[in-house]
Amino acid sequence: MRLLVIGGVAAGLSAAARARRIDPGLEILVLEKGQTISYGACGLPYYVEDRVHSADELIVYTPEYFRKERNISVRTGAAVVEIAHARREVTLENGERIHYDRLVIATGARPACGAIAGADQPHVFRLNTLDDGIRLKRYLVEKKPGRAVVIGGGFIGLEAVDALRRNGLAVTLFGASQHLLRREDAELTSALVAHLQRFGVKTHLGAPVRTIAPDRVDDTPCDLVLIGTGLLPNAEIAFAAGVQKGRTGAIQVDDRMQTNLGGVYAAGDCAETFHLVTGRPAWIPLGTTANKMGRVAGANAAGVRERFGGVVGTCVLSVFGLGIGMSGLSASEARREGFSPVSARIEARAKARYFGGRSTTVELTADQKTGRLLGGVVTGEQGVAGRINVIAAALHHGMAVDEFERLDLAYAPPFSTVWDPLLIAAQQLLRQL
Amino acid sequence: MRLLVIGGVAAGLSAAARARRIDPGLEILVLEKGQTISYGACGLPYYVEDRVHSADELIVYTPEYFRKERNISVRTGAAVVEIAHARREVTLENGERIHYDRLVIATGARPACGAIAGADQPHVFRLNTLDDGIRLKRYLVEKKPGRAVVIGGGFIGLEAVDALRRNGLAVTLFGASQHLLRREDAELTSALVAHLQRFGVKTHLGAPVRTIAPDRVDDTPCDLVLIGTGLLPNAEIAFAAGVQKGRTGAIQVDDRMQTNLGGVYAAGDCAETFHLVTGRPAWIPLGTTANKMGRVAGANAAGVRERFGGVVGTCVLSVFGLGIGMSGLSASEARREGFSPVSARIEARAKARYFGGRSTTVELTADQKTGRLLGGVVTGEQGVAGRINVIAAALHHGMAVDEFERLDLAYAPPFSTVWDPLLIAAQQLLRQL
Repeated sequence: MRLLVIGGVAAGLSAAARARRIDPGLEILVLEKGQTISYGACGLPYYVEDRVHSADELIVYTPEYFRKERNISVRTGAAVVEIAHARREVTLENGERIHYDRLVIATGARPACGAIAGADQPHVFRLNTLDDGIRLKRYLVEKKPGRAVVIGGGFIGLEAVDALRRNGLAVTLFGASQHLLRREDAELTSALVAHLQRFGVKTHLGAPVRTIAPDRVDDTPCDLVLIGTGLLPNAEIAFAAGVQKGRTGAIQVDDRMQTNLGGVYAAGDCAETFHLVTGRPAWIPLGTTANKMGRVAGANAAGVRERFGGVVGTCVLSVFGLGIGMSGLSASEARREGFSPVSARIEARAKARYFGGRSTTVELTADQKTGRLLGGVVTGEQGVAGRINVIAAALHHGMAVDEFERLDLAYAPPFSTVWDPLLIAAQQLLRQL
Repeated sequence: MRLLVIGGVAAGLSAAARARRIDPGLEILVLEKGQTISYGACGLPYYVEDRVHSADELIVYTPEYFRKERNISVRTGAAVVEIAHARREVTLENGERIHYDRLVIATGARPACGAIAGADQPHVFRLNTLDDGIRLKRYLVEKKPGRAVVIGGGFIGLEAVDALRRNGLAVTLFGASQHLLRREDAELTSALVAHLQRFGVKTHLGAPVRTIAPDRVDDTPCDLVLIGTGLLPNAEIAFAAGVQKGRTGAIQVDDRMQTNLGGVYAAGDCAETFHLVTGRPAWIPLGTTANKMGRVAGANAAGVRERFGGVVGTCVLSVFGLGIGMSGLSASEARREGFSPVSARIEARAKARYFGGRSTTVELTADQKTGRLLGGVVTGEQGVAGRINVIAAALHHGMAVDEFERLDLAYAPPFSTVWDPLLIAAQQLLRQL
């Protein structure tokens, strides 16, 4: 009995490791098209920044580790070009065919930058894979570029802006929409734009880039361009094999990560997840989710029924020391999903003044009809991850705002204020419901 | 219609302010026996430490503020000695009688140090009220004591140890039980003892103090003694008036903060709260809870039905930079309450190594029979409050460990690890269930 896993990063290796833990006798083979497996892609911006000095530091496990310690075979440089499910076979680029009994597809996502002309020049980069990071860092060291343009105001774009600026480059950010972080939230965007400005970053929003010239983007001269315009699921070989595409464009799976094909599972950035707030499938490619989906896929592929608990869309990033945490739906997303959203935003001290407490912003959104909490945003320099995680836990449970407002949260002056900013925001929102 | 509030700190003033917001026409009078109202008692250790330089900085509002801005009368130095509920009257120390229509009792708690001989000497202190803090700080400044003994290994005791040590004093801590923080948790206690030792603090546990000599406690010479041996509810005048005592020894209230006497409410440290994990009344005197109970008492006293959501026993403190957050029940408490507790404790990095991530410890306890989460402890130097608050939100909802393990928590290297320590602990605990 052979479990074949396509993809050797987060989801694929989580699946393989989980399957091995469940079934010591299973034959497990992981195929990775790149030269490296098991790296923390979320650390790439910090490798570019040079906070992480060597790319090796981002690698968690080697193929040798998996072979020796987990009895899992890993082949790198093994790109699958076709899945022939009727024969239970995949074909590699070199024509080699490999049989499977169970298959986990964990082919990830890739940058969506098809429409930009000039994207294949040597001074144009992405930041999706470890190889992308190594190529960019080598360019920074060897060419010492002075001016960068970053295209895309999402997570990767903003983290890259931070990393490049800290390398001393002049940085200009181009965003196709009027909003940063793909969130229709004028206040969040303007706060972020002002923050970027304080660190000397120029921002052009509502400015989609069509062409990258050798020495400029639009009127901005530059020696380096980074494209962070979003991702697309890497699922073409799956769809060609008859795997069902979901409404989001990623692979459709059930809560056991099973596709429509018997014995074929999908997990990670190539597959859909289930959004607990909307009650519908969503495509939210993130490392945390990929690991969790991978575990579930591996368990089920090894014969144990486990289900994926769904996501609430929690994420966090840091831009020049400002933390931005988001969970659930924004007001505009909520409206599109048929809710009647009401939001309240408050600003309060993150902890006692005499412990250096700085201002933090909490926005909560709830459904007018049911009083249910739908989402939240926390920004600030202190306590952002902890507070967005409390919102995430509440969303996971479909908590109403009046319950949220009663939460028994911890207080001591080094950590918080007697009314935690989360509770102040909930009180404010309750007045509007 | 007059609402009379006895007590002008957290619960009393929350009640008064909430009642005023609901009913602009109500006559509201607050009686405070001390000279100061509305101070943050949780900040007292930091005033002793001298991080807070002036006691005024701990005062949030003055009587004048309440009079002018809220139309709430406040009398300080007004100690109530008797409640005559049949006549709807209270009697002050000076014999004056004051009528009420509705009454909120928010008389707080006091240090429980009755059994210690010599506790009334001039070099012996408590740290319960602002006056206690002022007296202690004056002694530190004027007498420049070099050696302190702190009696009591609870919150106040440990925060006082930290504050006194940072003032340069040699500090010895005496605890009556074998455990610190009133928690039967040998690992937590030994970690704390080792931490205290690193900062030069000597610890004697299982060493109840019976007598304070003028120059020593037991064999430890000292110039200053601080008693932090726990609290007792200040509820004698309430009980004398026929207010029902609960099984915990504090005032029994329903979820609207109403006592057994019509129109008489109680809130804050003098009253019981409802523990959502045990489903039973509990006495957990804390500022956060006092404020929330006060609001509910004030709302109901002003004629609006509001209910208190209960607590899960969340608290946090910092001792020499080590954060300790606790929520829910310890294993031994759980056993006493009839659960079959199972615990798992893990140690993991609080965030990415390259963001200076230090070790954090998470312990989760669940009920073997139902899989329900019963409590947790988080210790470490980073992210402690945020993580204990996630546990608190889960406990509020009676979440099972397998659900907790699926929480969609935020990840980025500056904030966390891809598997948050909370989720690692939950995975560990699930293996034992």
